[in-house]
Amino acid sequence: MSSYPKFTIYDFPTGPYPARVRIALGEKKLEHLAEFELIDLFKGTHKKPEFRENLNFSGTVPVVKFENGDLLAECTAITEFLDSLDGNTVLTGLTPRERGDIHMFTRRVENEFLEPISLYFHNATPGLGPDVETYQNHEWGLRQREKGLRGMRYFNKLLVTREFVTCDRFTMADMALVAAMVFLAVVKEPVPADCDALLAWWARVQLRPSVINRVTMSQ
Amino acid sequence: MSSYPKFTIYDFPTGPYPARVRIALGEKKLEHLAEFELIDLFKGTHKKPEFRENLNFSGTVPVVKFENGDLLAECTAITEFLDSLDGNTVLTGLTPRERGDIHMFTRRVENEFLEPISLYFHNATPGLGPDVETYQNHEWGLRQREKGLRGMRYFNKLLVTREFVTCDRFTMADMALVAAMVFLAVVKEPVPADCDALLAWWARVQLRPSVINRVTMSQ
Ligand SMILES: N[C@@H](CCC(=O)N[C@@H](CS)C(=O)NCC(=O)O)C(=O)O
Ligand SMILES: N[C@@H](CCC(=O)N[C@@H](CS)C(=O)NCC(=O)O)C(=O)O
Repeated sequence: MSSYPKFTIYDFPTGPYPARVRIALGEKKLEHLAEFELIDLFKGTHKKPEFRENLNFSGTVPVVKFENGDLLAECTAITEFLDSLDGNTVLTGLTPRERGDIHMFTRRVENEFLEPISLYFHNATPGLGPDVETYQNHEWGLRQREKGLRGMRYFNKLLVTREFVTCDRFTMADMALVAAMVFLAVVKEPVPADCDALLAWWARVQLRPSVINRVTMSQ
Repeated sequence: MSSYPKFTIYDFPTGPYPARVRIALGEKKLEHLAEFELIDLFKGTHKKPEFRENLNFSGTVPVVKFENGDLLAECTAITEFLDSLDGNTVLTGLTPRERGDIHMFTRRVENEFLEPISLYFHNATPGLGPDVETYQNHEWGLRQREKGLRGMRYFNKLLVTREFVTCDRFTMADMALVAAMVFLAVVKEPVPADCDALLAWWARVQLRPSVINRVTMSQ
């Protein structure tokens, strides 16, 4: 335990993607390894050349920085790292088939729901404000909103017969779906009432300590 | 070995994404597990409701179908599955830090190079033809082309001091970069001559049997 590395996480406490990593820390009981550094997305720090060169070429948070300066970006990558530390990879899969299923569903949540809603936010709403959103493609944003709503209905249908997205337990795929639900709230898009399986899943996972405590973590 | 499951892969032999899975099969010497079924992307089979319902909601290939009917889509997920079968996860990482790095760089190749070139292809070129490309956003496509070229230069710079994308060996991240280079050829976009580190990496990896033999696999 004492040999686990400490690190700083650059993030934005209420952000949808940061939620994924904060929940992973909570699920794995590794909160003590992390310090947080606020990146104010509305100020556009993450789009500046220094951020792209010194922290993350993609200009997004979260980013993990280890004490030796090594960097780790991308929620899936950070979750893989955290989940592997104790060798008990419950969040990312214990068998080859589980690993495949969890990565497939995580990516599907991203492709069909989380990223479309993010693209809608940045392209067809004020997003992070005019200083940060220097290019918007309104039509593309609106198409992505439609895509995200179709994706939401796909996951609703899936959850009619499942308690979790895959593997009969809370995994990285559910964590991605939490991020998508958090992003829906950011864009003030209500979940249609007929998506009751998705809403029931959301009510259930919001009771998890890792989900409840994610924003206040380490404050 | 004999307990490994057999499966069918729905794909398009010369496609950029299918390349990732075919190379994974070659690297892991698991070609014998797979049969291939051609999905003719130019006919749009992958966008039909039956394909989305019975094979992959996202309407893309490759898709793995196991003998019991279970499905596995998404290149990263399929690579995770194949790489974990023998417990020697050289392609996806042997340690927590390696797993993080390989997933970060795989995703970065996708975000900054492979997906932008794919979006350019589908939105600002004839793509798969008018029957398949029923909506195009030309301006978005051209922006994505620019993004992909910036990504290409980022990877060129990285490869000035590295033989492989990460971890000092050929991993899933290199396999994603192969797919990006294959997609560049599809859109007939030449690699700028000043990207000599990327071109040198490309010349090296094209000598790997898994890369050479990917298209003709099982024919
Ligand atoms: N693929 C990235 C996406 C991260 C992402 O989009 N993060 C948001 C914060 S919730 C961000 O930095 N957005 C700022 C922007 O895109 O301008 C990941 O998984 O970490
Ligand atoms: N994220 C997917 C992307 C797969 C993908 O885009 N595949 C291409 C084939 S190279 C495809 O099916 N394209 C058809 C289309 O988008 O219409 C993966 O990793 O498998």
